[in-house]
Amino acid sequence: MDRIRRLAERASTDRAKLDALFDDQLVGTLAGVHEDAPWVVPMMVARDGDRVVMHGSTGAGLLRHAASGAPVALCVTALDALVVAHSGFDSSMNYRSAVIRGRCTELRGADKQHGLDVITDRLAPGRTAEVRPHTGREVAATLVLALPLTDWLYKERTGTASEPDEETDAWSGLVPLQQGWGEPERAPFSDAALPPSVRGLIGR
Amino acid sequence: MDRIRRLAERASTDRAKLDALFDDQLVGTLAGVHEDAPWVVPMMVARDGDRVVMHGSTGAGLLRHAASGAPVALCVTALDALVVAHSGFDSSMNYRSAVIRGRCTELRGADKQHGLDVITDRLAPGRTAEVRPHTGREVAATLVLALPLTDWLYKERTGTASEPDEETDAWSGLVPLQQGWGEPERAPFSDAALPPSVRGLIGR
Repeated sequence: MDRIRRLAERASTDRAKLDALFDDQLVGTLAGVHEDAPWVVPMMVARDGDRVVMHGSTGAGLLRHAASGAPVALCVTALDALVVAHSGFDSSMNYRSAVIRGRCTELRGADKQHGLDVITDRLAPGRTAEVRPHTGREVAATLVLALPLTDWLYKERTGTASEPDEETDAWSGLVPLQQGWGEPERAPFSDAALPPSVRGLIGR
Repeated sequence: MDRIRRLAERASTDRAKLDALFDDQLVGTLAGVHEDAPWVVPMMVARDGDRVVMHGSTGAGLLRHAASGAPVALCVTALDALVVAHSGFDSSMNYRSAVIRGRCTELRGADKQHGLDVITDRLAPGRTAEVRPHTGREVAATLVLALPLTDWLYKERTGTASEPDEETDAWSGLVPLQQGWGEPERAPFSDAALPPSVRGLIGR
């Protein structure tokens, strides 16, 4: 059993798998260290080439800490399926996860504007072209950080439950997690038609 | 705009909201500190009353670190909707998140067995009654930790996009994330009928 488990749950150095995870997941957990204890905050993540862009208020403590160049770690995880095995011990989950470690740089000037556009377009591809540019006040109120995709570890578990090496009549298999964007809900004060960016998300 | 944003994105001390988040989310990010840098690992989480139970191999570094009583933080986040606003700055996400800080205790004896059952039943409610008990070897190979729900912070954003205080013809609204368990996929070596625990997950 352990042999099969180790084959199925493994690290990968395939950068395409890392990129695919960022294509799927909008949220990660950013961690730092404060007074010898871990400090964690959920964060929107958007890959921009060989870096991950994150943003928040200039008042956000962990972002300011990260902007100062302190060591951080970012964990992004996608749950794909429950692995229901013949025993509790062999039961598991299919998942994909990445941990990126390093130090952030604060984006400034044109690169900061670019980072904000990357974030807006990550939420709904093409949205940047549908809304007005960021104002100076908005840019000033936002901290935009980039974490390089240099020191990263990708792991996944795929495949069905491990095959029992004992007699059992217990069911074994996967229960896949299905996810998708539902019907958009227009705000009561908005009378605009559904824009291409949102139509793209829902495939129509 | 900022006023509305702050009203919509807020912390809550409502324990029922924390419990509901754990009812929804199976995976969190556990963080510790190693050589002054953050150390993060995705982790299955299962609430057991006033504590969160986590488990892994006795060889798992961060779990061993946590078992030693080192300070840890656990972040659990649910993404509920994209908030598509009239500007990039006002766009956001509806989410629920919790950060639990503290120190873990390692479960032993009957409490460890109980913890493992909680985990098995968290994957598929009722599964413990459908599979054989954990063997001594399996219990010995597993580290089971509990983190008390004492020092926790819950935050959420709910509601639609913030109302523009400027002229705009940009669409505003929500795009909800829909999630659910899909059709179970029986392992090729299994010929058992779909058990009640899995039928419960998919509502039939």
